[in-house]
Amino acid sequence: MITPIKQHHEIIANELRKAIRDREFKTGDPVPSEAELCKRFHTSRGPVRQAIATLRAEGLLSSSRGRRTVVLDNVPTQSFDGVISFSQWCKNSGIEPGQITQHLTRHPADAKLAASLEIEPGAPVVSVYRLRLMDSEPVMVERLNYPLEVGKIVLAFDTDSGSIYQELIDQGVDINNATRTIDAIAASAEDAELLNIPEGSPLLRVRRRAFTVDGTPIESSEDCYLPSKASFTLNTAREQPSPLTMVRSAS
Amino acid sequence: MITPIKQHHEIIANELRKAIRDREFKTGDPVPSEAELCKRFHTSRGPVRQAIATLRAEGLLSSSRGRRTVVLDNVPTQSFDGVISFSQWCKNSGIEPGQITQHLTRHPADAKLAASLEIEPGAPVVSVYRLRLMDSEPVMVERLNYPLEVGKIVLAFDTDSGSIYQELIDQGVDINNATRTIDAIAASAEDAELLNIPEGSPLLRVRRRAFTVDGTPIESSEDCYLPSKASFTLNTAREQPSPLTMVRSAS
Repeated sequence: MITPIKQHHEIIANELRKAIRDREFKTGDPVPSEAELCKRFHTSRGPVRQAIATLRAEGLLSSSRGRRTVVLDNVPTQSFDGVISFSQWCKNSGIEPGQITQHLTRHPADAKLAASLEIEPGAPVVSVYRLRLMDSEPVMVERLNYPLEVGKIVLAFDTDSGSIYQELIDQGVDINNATRTIDAIAASAEDAELLNIPEGSPLLRVRRRAFTVDGTPIESSEDCYLPSKASFTLNTAREQPSPLTMVRSAS
Repeated sequence: MITPIKQHHEIIANELRKAIRDREFKTGDPVPSEAELCKRFHTSRGPVRQAIATLRAEGLLSSSRGRRTVVLDNVPTQSFDGVISFSQWCKNSGIEPGQITQHLTRHPADAKLAASLEIEPGAPVVSVYRLRLMDSEPVMVERLNYPLEVGKIVLAFDTDSGSIYQELIDQGVDINNATRTIDAIAASAEDAELLNIPEGSPLLRVRRRAFTVDGTPIESSEDCYLPSKASFTLNTAREQPSPLTMVRSAS
């Protein structure tokens, strides 16, 4: 895949994120004026304003109205690779990822999975159940499900060897966006045994659906984390809608 | 408080969010071109681009590079009021909120709470423990903690009557931004009794710190939800960092 050329506002947004991460711009500090940023990035106000709008929506900068824009608490954002791929998240976090496949199955989709993947009930799917490790310690169990076309790539892959996500990308699968739903669940007997915890212990559950650019589902997964090992964090600023939305559980 | 005047790109962003919410722009559809949007909003490209950048960062639109921009899965964003206030979240969701105060206490901060509020250990704080209801059903227990200056307002308020957040806003407290950390926890005996579930049942926990614009903490809270009643959801698009970040738990 050819990497598309970054647009000017994206380069500025990356530079600003880096300045916040490196604490050049500290929590509570006002950000430089538009004029100063234009000078720094040799650009006009348009791309600077787009970059600022992006960082506001990410919760890195305060809202604009009636007040100066300041740097908020230093919560890092997460790359899309890190959202989709536990292996990549570990690598970004300086952790050695690991995986032990429990089973890899081709089977007909039940009604619920078929609905999630938007295929006919009974259509073939490929499912993977793996224990995931951080620095050799059990941390998470994952259940990944793919429609057959994508699943064929998974069936041909050694799922003990590393990132399925990377393999799909390498094989040209167009993973464009994902929806995550986060809640808590009691550990099943199966998960509890793998994670070495009592059955019924609380787990942090992340259900994810991944889509191509035209909205076709290509993955429906469920990751259950030990809450002692992982949690989620984000900033939100006043007058800036939060992309993370609380919803009534559909159960 | 005087409501500051909305900037042009904010108005456009609101209109675009509304068009997505109302399904005028449907999932998978390309968004109109910049030229069309300029015409529709009687504006130049700058504010249109800022608005698009905001909606991309919110996960409502796909990324730009190398592909047309399309509307992603229709996950609504959440207002800051809804992030901070359970009462407001309920109202936004068409649910009748309720609350039953268990205790309201003025006491010296222990080391952990003092660190979270950035005050001296032993400094006075005000703590509230309430059961929260949706349409008269138990859904969540909340533990709210305030430094004394803010807490005095809470002590003078009937915490069974409604939103503490609204009372703080009405009294002129400047709640500018908040950090949330989400994980799972086993229900304590105290919480289990109020929520009418077995002790140790999994709860979805949201820890929140709220700040003034200059970064002074004014609230440190912990909400524990029945996962059968509430969950969190968000979209993320490729090449767009996610504001929700997974972190190693600090336990």
